[in-house]
Amino acid sequence: MLILAILARRTKLGKGQKGLPGLLSPVNFLDHTQHKGLAVAVFGVLLCKLCGMVIAPNPLPFSTDSENKQNWMILALFYYPALYYPLLACGTLHNKVGYVLGSLLSWTHFGVQVWQKIDCPKTPQIHKYYSLFSSLPQIACLAFLSFQYPLLLFKGLKGTEKSNATEVSFSSGTISSGMAVSLFRFPLKLAISGVVSFISLYQMALLLVLLVVPTLQSARMGVDEEIAMVLSGFKIELSPDKAEVVRIVVHYIWCVEVSYISAMTLACLINLAMLMRSMVLHRSNLKGLYRGDIYNVYNCQRSIRPSRPALVCWMGYTSFTAAHLCFGMIVQTMVFFLCLLITVFLIIMPVFHGQNLILFKLLWSMWPFWLMLLLAVVLQHITARFCFIKKTAGTRDLDNRGSLFLLTYLLFPVNVLIGVLLGLWRMVITALFNIVHLGRMDISLLNRNVEAFDPAYRCYAHYLKIEVSQSHPVMKAFCGMLLQSAGQEGSAAQRARDAEEGIQLVQEKKQLRVSSAKRARGHWQLLYTLVNNPSLVGTRKHFQRQTTESFLNGSLNRTAKDGSKKEAGTKEAEEAASN
Amino acid sequence: MLILAILARRTKLGKGQKGLPGLLSPVNFLDHTQHKGLAVAVFGVLLCKLCGMVIAPNPLPFSTDSENKQNWMILALFYYPALYYPLLACGTLHNKVGYVLGSLLSWTHFGVQVWQKIDCPKTPQIHKYYSLFSSLPQIACLAFLSFQYPLLLFKGLKGTEKSNATEVSFSSGTISSGMAVSLFRFPLKLAISGVVSFISLYQMALLLVLLVVPTLQSARMGVDEEIAMVLSGFKIELSPDKAEVVRIVVHYIWCVEVSYISAMTLACLINLAMLMRSMVLHRSNLKGLYRGDIYNVYNCQRSIRPSRPALVCWMGYTSFTAAHLCFGMIVQTMVFFLCLLITVFLIIMPVFHGQNLILFKLLWSMWPFWLMLLLAVVLQHITARFCFIKKTAGTRDLDNRGSLFLLTYLLFPVNVLIGVLLGLWRMVITALFNIVHLGRMDISLLNRNVEAFDPAYRCYAHYLKIEVSQSHPVMKAFCGMLLQSAGQEGSAAQRARDAEEGIQLVQEKKQLRVSSAKRARGHWQLLYTLVNNPSLVGTRKHFQRQTTESFLNGSLNRTAKDGSKKEAGTKEAEEAASN
Repeated sequence: MLILAILARRTKLGKGQKGLPGLLSPVNFLDHTQHKGLAVAVFGVLLCKLCGMVIAPNPLPFSTDSENKQNWMILALFYYPALYYPLLACGTLHNKVGYVLGSLLSWTHFGVQVWQKIDCPKTPQIHKYYSLFSSLPQIACLAFLSFQYPLLLFKGLKGTEKSNATEVSFSSGTISSGMAVSLFRFPLKLAISGVVSFISLYQMALLLVLLVVPTLQSARMGVDEEIAMVLSGFKIELSPDKAEVVRIVVHYIWCVEVSYISAMTLACLINLAMLMRSMVLHRSNLKGLYRGDIYNVYNCQRSIRPSRPALVCWMGYTSFTAAHLCFGMIVQTMVFFLCLLITVFLIIMPVFHGQNLILFKLLWSMWPFWLMLLLAVVLQHITARFCFIKKTAGTRDLDNRGSLFLLTYLLFPVNVLIGVLLGLWRMVITALFNIVHLGRMDISLLNRNVEAFDPAYRCYAHYLKIEVSQSHPVMKAFCGMLLQSAGQEGSAAQRARDAEEGIQLVQEKKQLRVSSAKRARGHWQLLYTLVNNPSLVGTRKHFQRQTTESFLNGSLNRTAKDGSKKEAGTKEAEEAASN
Repeated sequence: MLILAILARRTKLGKGQKGLPGLLSPVNFLDHTQHKGLAVAVFGVLLCKLCGMVIAPNPLPFSTDSENKQNWMILALFYYPALYYPLLACGTLHNKVGYVLGSLLSWTHFGVQVWQKIDCPKTPQIHKYYSLFSSLPQIACLAFLSFQYPLLLFKGLKGTEKSNATEVSFSSGTISSGMAVSLFRFPLKLAISGVVSFISLYQMALLLVLLVVPTLQSARMGVDEEIAMVLSGFKIELSPDKAEVVRIVVHYIWCVEVSYISAMTLACLINLAMLMRSMVLHRSNLKGLYRGDIYNVYNCQRSIRPSRPALVCWMGYTSFTAAHLCFGMIVQTMVFFLCLLITVFLIIMPVFHGQNLILFKLLWSMWPFWLMLLLAVVLQHITARFCFIKKTAGTRDLDNRGSLFLLTYLLFPVNVLIGVLLGLWRMVITALFNIVHLGRMDISLLNRNVEAFDPAYRCYAHYLKIEVSQSHPVMKAFCGMLLQSAGQEGSAAQRARDAEEGIQLVQEKKQLRVSSAKRARGHWQLLYTLVNNPSLVGTRKHFQRQTTESFLNGSLNRTAKDGSKKEAGTKEAEEAASN
């Protein structure tokens, strides 16, 4: 109630300064220069709350009615975003009052959380410390906010005029310098997705460990001599000595435990690695699309413009990433656990104890068969290398065709058996690859011709469209120059950086040959932009390309000449990228 | 022994006429105009023998030692190809004596097989009629051979001179008119793979049916009132009345049986459809590669020339296809059977009997949750369509950015839950696609960037390389014209057809503008060939392109002009193909 009152008060304050619309769009996901930290932290807090909510018997703090848990949960799904909304909105005001309120709010939230956990660290659900561990990232995010808001307030007090000067608003979004990264600006939506993925990885790992390991441990502790009787009830006779039976059973349970923890750790590490690879791939995809390499990224030609499904996918992308990671993690842990169990109980344990070597005995008894298959494969490789290929004058051609055909015919039945092994290997490879990449949305798990049937990849492809079409650095540079030419002063540095980024991106290692005259340079940049990004032409007011170009340059000839030069340059850059 | 004696006699005859080398390469896999029927039928017979061999207790007819079955089987793997070798070799002689011997041999084999099956149609292995059904395709193949050889003999008697005239040998292979298909000649290797796949499909289906269905049927027949006592031993109480229990159990077993047969039929139909699609894809791949569209087929640039791994893969391709189909069939039947069982026992039976509606009750009790998810999705789609996208002057752009960002933030927790459903759907889709396509080697089951890690696809890609590099119709036309220009007479019709096929392939809907002079036309075709197939240049004796072109045309200018025209033409054709 206190928080809501503050929100109401803050809204009134906000009205006087920037208007309600500014407050109602607290995160500009498409602006790469906003206070990323704030948005990322709030999304992190929200995700932790969601995890707690699904498991807790009472999703909302003020409800104790566990019968209608479902309805309360639906309410909670909308209550928590609203609860943490002020934390985000305070940052959008970009003034002292906002930062003060933000500091107060984040301190309150942080204090309440820490006090709750200190007051009762143990809860009955799943494991006594689950709730404590689960809320650690939430507390970390709130601590970050509690630290960030005062920092912003302090910065704001020092450089009020400067920050006001660098505020340029265009197309209803805002650009403020903030923590701009000079080389390549990390898109905000991606930053949020990354942190949200990381937190969901942590939450999932915690849940997987605390659901199973304590149970196994208590089972291991509770094994006594009665187990021998229970086992003999199922006609399993491990040993005549009861103490020996207990020892064996405890050892087996310990093996299961180790396998489970190893599987979980492996799944965690794989998902972390995949997260890193996703980031790298996303960056290269963005750069490729900025440069116009649509075919390389999508494997087909498509228009990069907002559409209904693209927008829906863009809205859900962050959430879907987190959900896919959790889902992938569960599947991976289960599969790896099964594989490890099989390895441990069928291979490692028999080898160590020298008994129950069923698998090895079976394989060993078939040695003439394996030897024959191996010899057939080796024979084919050796004859292919030395008898059937002749190299003459730099070219390679078939030789001894008669013998080749004869060998092909004679080895037909043997190759069928090799083919069965190959099919088995294919299934293992495919299943493993798909399970390992189940948590990644940015690659399709299907064949290249039906990629779009993979719902996750389809979503990522659409998301990429919106990101590229709305935050293309060349477009930003273009808008900046338009504003500049309209005579509007201020924030020249910001715009120059945008322009440079745009040019760097399309240039890529190629020296720019422009005349030194400033006016000519400006026109050149605009022309450059349009020639290399024909998709931008359509978004201009007068989108007849010929008209624009002749208007800008005065002569069509020069345009065509330069255009062809640039095209060659872009091809070079493409080749460099593909290498 | 009788057959071996005939083989020895025939070899001596063969020596006198065409030499041993001709006999030792009975199938020219790379020649599309050979007697396909003979090779296809012999491979079919061999595959049927292989299937019977794996299952039979005595792989060889003259061994009754079932202890060393493994060693006998290894011997049999090489014995049977040798046994059926004469059937193939008789066809390569291309004369009356060969056809007479072939007829005699095929009649003998056919007679022995039919007599064996009539003498004792029932065998103890698997099912009493398994052996009979299993050898049906073998008998069909032998019958085809018994019919084909006399036909060839008859044809040979009628048109001896004609067939001799059309025999042209180049690069140690032979071209004979045979059953040439005028439009697009079916590669022999593919024809063999197709028939072998079909037979392995039949054999696998037969094995799957006869292994399981008779057992289930006899179990169903054998159910009596004792089953009620057995079940109560496991504390399962289906009904207080014993007759009622028997009725229920019989009904359940019948359901399992129907599910199994449906799953098997489904797997069969899917694999048949996949076989058809494989053929279509292979044809388009071949045409694409003949035209030089390497990137479209392989998704990367690679050289189409024979190499060691390519040759090994080419040798094994037919066998691998059969093995993959069998393996895919087993996996598909198992998966579909499981899915059908779940569907029948969790969905269809409860709905029909109106009891045990656990799944439905669970889903129904969660209706507010499903409704909320549905509403969230609909809300996002509707707002994306009507509020957040504005269309002005033919372009689309984002509108109401503030509200869009706000909605994205507020729906974050709901979208996480939608994402979990999406992940589940993704897993189902991916698994289903990969299982359905497990029997196909010509598409990769992996993501487009790691396609080559799929061993089956890698093998197909290599196989395609050899096929294209060795039986390119343009190369054939080129060789034909080279022979013609060397002054060699005869079989002009054959070569003209080759040349036409080559030109048709690269031309594709584009009118050929050539001068009417005959000599100029020949040179033009050669030039055309080389410009559109630069890969062929390297295989020529003097492989410096400039020299060749200037030698042919006399002027470099015309070459460059025509070349650029042709390139434009090829691009048109590519676009047409992609549409």
